Amino acid sequence: MRAVAIIEKKRDGGEHTHEELEYFILGYTRGEIPDYQAAAWAMAVFFQGMTPRETADLTLVMAHSGQMLDLSDTVDIAVDKHSTGGVGDKTSLVVVPAVAAAGLPVGKMSGRGLGFSGGTLDKLESIPGYRTDLSVAEFKRQLRTVGAVLTGQSLDLAPADGKLYALRDVTGTVPSIPLIASSIMSKKLAAGAQAIVLDVKVGLGAFMPTLAKARELATLMVDIARHTGRRALALLSDMNQPLGRAVGNALEVREAIATLHGQGPEDFYEHCLTVAAYMLLLGGRVPDVETGRARIAEVIASGAAWQKFKDLVAAQGGDVAYVEHPERLPQARWVETVVADRDGYVAQVHARQVGETAVLLGAGREKKGDPIDHAVGIEVHVKVGQHVARGAPLFTVHANDAARLAQAKAALQAAVTWSDEPVPPLPLFYGVVGADAAGA
Amino acid sequence: MRAVAIIEKKRDGGEHTHEELEYFILGYTRGEIPDYQAAAWAMAVFFQGMTPRETADLTLVMAHSGQMLDLSDTVDIAVDKHSTGGVGDKTSLVVVPAVAAAGLPVGKMSGRGLGFSGGTLDKLESIPGYRTDLSVAEFKRQLRTVGAVLTGQSLDLAPADGKLYALRDVTGTVPSIPLIASSIMSKKLAAGAQAIVLDVKVGLGAFMPTLAKARELATLMVDIARHTGRRALALLSDMNQPLGRAVGNALEVREAIATLHGQGPEDFYEHCLTVAAYMLLLGGRVPDVETGRARIAEVIASGAAWQKFKDLVAAQGGDVAYVEHPERLPQARWVETVVADRDGYVAQVHARQVGETAVLLGAGREKKGDPIDHAVGIEVHVKVGQHVARGAPLFTVHANDAARLAQAKAALQAAVTWSDEPVPPLPLFYGVVGADAAGA
Repeated sequence: MRAVAIIEKKRDGGEHTHEELEYFILGYTRGEIPDYQAAAWAMAVFFQGMTPRETADLTLVMAHSGQMLDLSDTVDIAVDKHSTGGVGDKTSLVVVPAVAAAGLPVGKMSGRGLGFSGGTLDKLESIPGYRTDLSVAEFKRQLRTVGAVLTGQSLDLAPADGKLYALRDVTGTVPSIPLIASSIMSKKLAAGAQAIVLDVKVGLGAFMPTLAKARELATLMVDIARHTGRRALALLSDMNQPLGRAVGNALEVREAIATLHGQGPEDFYEHCLTVAAYMLLLGGRVPDVETGRARIAEVIASGAAWQKFKDLVAAQGGDVAYVEHPERLPQARWVETVVADRDGYVAQVHARQVGETAVLLGAGREKKGDPIDHAVGIEVHVKVGQHVARGAPLFTVHANDAARLAQAKAALQAAVTWSDEPVPPLPLFYGVVGADAAGA
Repeated sequence: MRAVAIIEKKRDGGEHTHEELEYFILGYTRGEIPDYQAAAWAMAVFFQGMTPRETADLTLVMAHSGQMLDLSDTVDIAVDKHSTGGVGDKTSLVVVPAVAAAGLPVGKMSGRGLGFSGGTLDKLESIPGYRTDLSVAEFKRQLRTVGAVLTGQSLDLAPADGKLYALRDVTGTVPSIPLIASSIMSKKLAAGAQAIVLDVKVGLGAFMPTLAKARELATLMVDIARHTGRRALALLSDMNQPLGRAVGNALEVREAIATLHGQGPEDFYEHCLTVAAYMLLLGGRVPDVETGRARIAEVIASGAAWQKFKDLVAAQGGDVAYVEHPERLPQARWVETVVADRDGYVAQVHARQVGETAVLLGAGREKKGDPIDHAVGIEVHVKVGQHVARGAPLFTVHANDAARLAQAKAALQAAVTWSDEPVPPLPLFYGVVGADAAGA
């Protein structure tokens, strides 16, 4: 086999065999096939696409490029979740302890934020002492004893994906549906997942700008699960406006804590109920989604989910005093309000612009490895469809730099679009892909 | 400017500015932009193409990436020629001395063979002592004193093209018309050409398989000349069957010598007359092509072209005794004939298969830097349209290895397609592109 022949085959619209993908991807991971050939191939994939079978093979090859975590000695069924990323998406912080409290252990490996999209690890690191670098042995032990884990991805899992993703990031080949789908699913497979709830975001603050693209990605990931002997379903969820109110790391931890006390924003609470219910369903703990939602509502109302969160934080070295007294989590120096400069109906709260403003304040990073400020961020007080009077608060900005505070206030004023006519609220979900195939 | 933004712009079908191309290509040449970004960009160009203006800018950027040869102190007009490569194409060996003998100095920098396509430098190196590494000073001196030069390309000319071509070769991005056109034209511009006759080959033994593709390439190169203040015209010439009879280095030198004596194969002689006549026309030495053809026929008949060839060989250190007695040029150990195994009309002599068989015998190279055997090759005795009787000679194989000789004989037998019905001969040319624009 020759690398250039494989590139030419994809360039000319061919379908790779499993052997070709293994030769090319593993050769690339070992450094035998150079970056420039992988880059040319990725760009050819961008233009020519991949069949579902081919994408499933690519996923398997990447998953098997490193250690494959086997959780069969730890849990009866390894259920996982994945969000394609968005603004204000602190769902894992609530659903992982809630699902665990409802009797289904969940060990989840998360990522960091990049660009306008936040990351679970960054949020958790707002809590002093919290460790996101558990070893596999620690991961399994905590999954067995606490039933809930939220940590970073082990470096040994799917190294091919790690290397290829870093290359795609600098070669304009990120927005390829089969490459996105195989990247996500290879990490889930390597992490031992047998059943996966995928939260595919769509809209202004998502990587998938249209419902058609989001559905394409969701369908392909559910197909990959089927081809590789796993079960998956995908929720198509709105990311035109931020999810919940808080955007920024410590702010989002506080909102997750409030939600675990039954005091979170309604949209975010509803979102968590649905995601968690589907996890219980895929994990065989409930017969249907409605029962799942009721169970999750119950463990939140009873305080069991909140207790599980504290157990999780404690197990991972976090100082529980900070989550019991969330006002002790990092606080920004300036806290100022942006108010409505007119009366009207909110037609848009541009999620991406809000996310980028949070990055501007220091809550996120432009490129990998940039430091972040856990204290800063934005509280969003309005939702699409709401009627707002002139002078009412739209946002609260938490900043540690005066110049950036001023820039952020102007940017946020511009992130809201108004209407004189009533505007319908945005749905939380646009649909579910693969519920039947997943046995849900 | 950011490299990844330039890649994304091309990926999404945008047109680059001159500044973007300069930033990206010169950055790549200096090693500041890595191979993998250039590879992804080249693949995006393969899919999205480039406008003529954009291609002209790319050509200029690559030409100016190194030394720009200025021949204005050496010749009144710098005329050049370029062939896109084929099988049995020894045209430069005849037209350069013939055009010079007709009063128009020509200094040409040529390349080596790769794959099924031969290269002028390899052919000339059949002559003991012949130097293909003249310095710029030597090149100019010989152009002034002899009026004819055939040497290799200086390493300082268009280094961006050299680096990008090597990358394209290993990333499946060679067959992109704008990248081919800018590669060819950047070298011609850097070599000081003001007027260029392009010999664009089309057919089974050419890089352009169809007339439409050949015309597209020809038109784009003529456009580039116009955009960059040069004059060019392109001949669309047949390369379905080998040109002339000889394929292989010393064999082709012998055929060029015979042609300079008025004893070459008719098709090759005609081809040379036309190419050379257009060079005289572009160089302002004749008022029309017909007069140009007559002048070239005259300098061949008078022996002036042959004398110029000997002067050129002597000036470049070649042993003239070998060209005066071409039987002294390298000879293969085995010379065997392949005969027709049936009566019939020749419908096809597959140029590429003949060229690949010559490579098999050792006349060419699979990859850059492979050694070649100057003695071996193939004589082709039949042309499409000819009626051949069973037992008549089709090919004479010159080999230095018995096993390869046997393989070659079988391959050549298969390279001929027969017809029971009469078949029209192939034309030499399919058209001329840009004659008007070139002022011809």
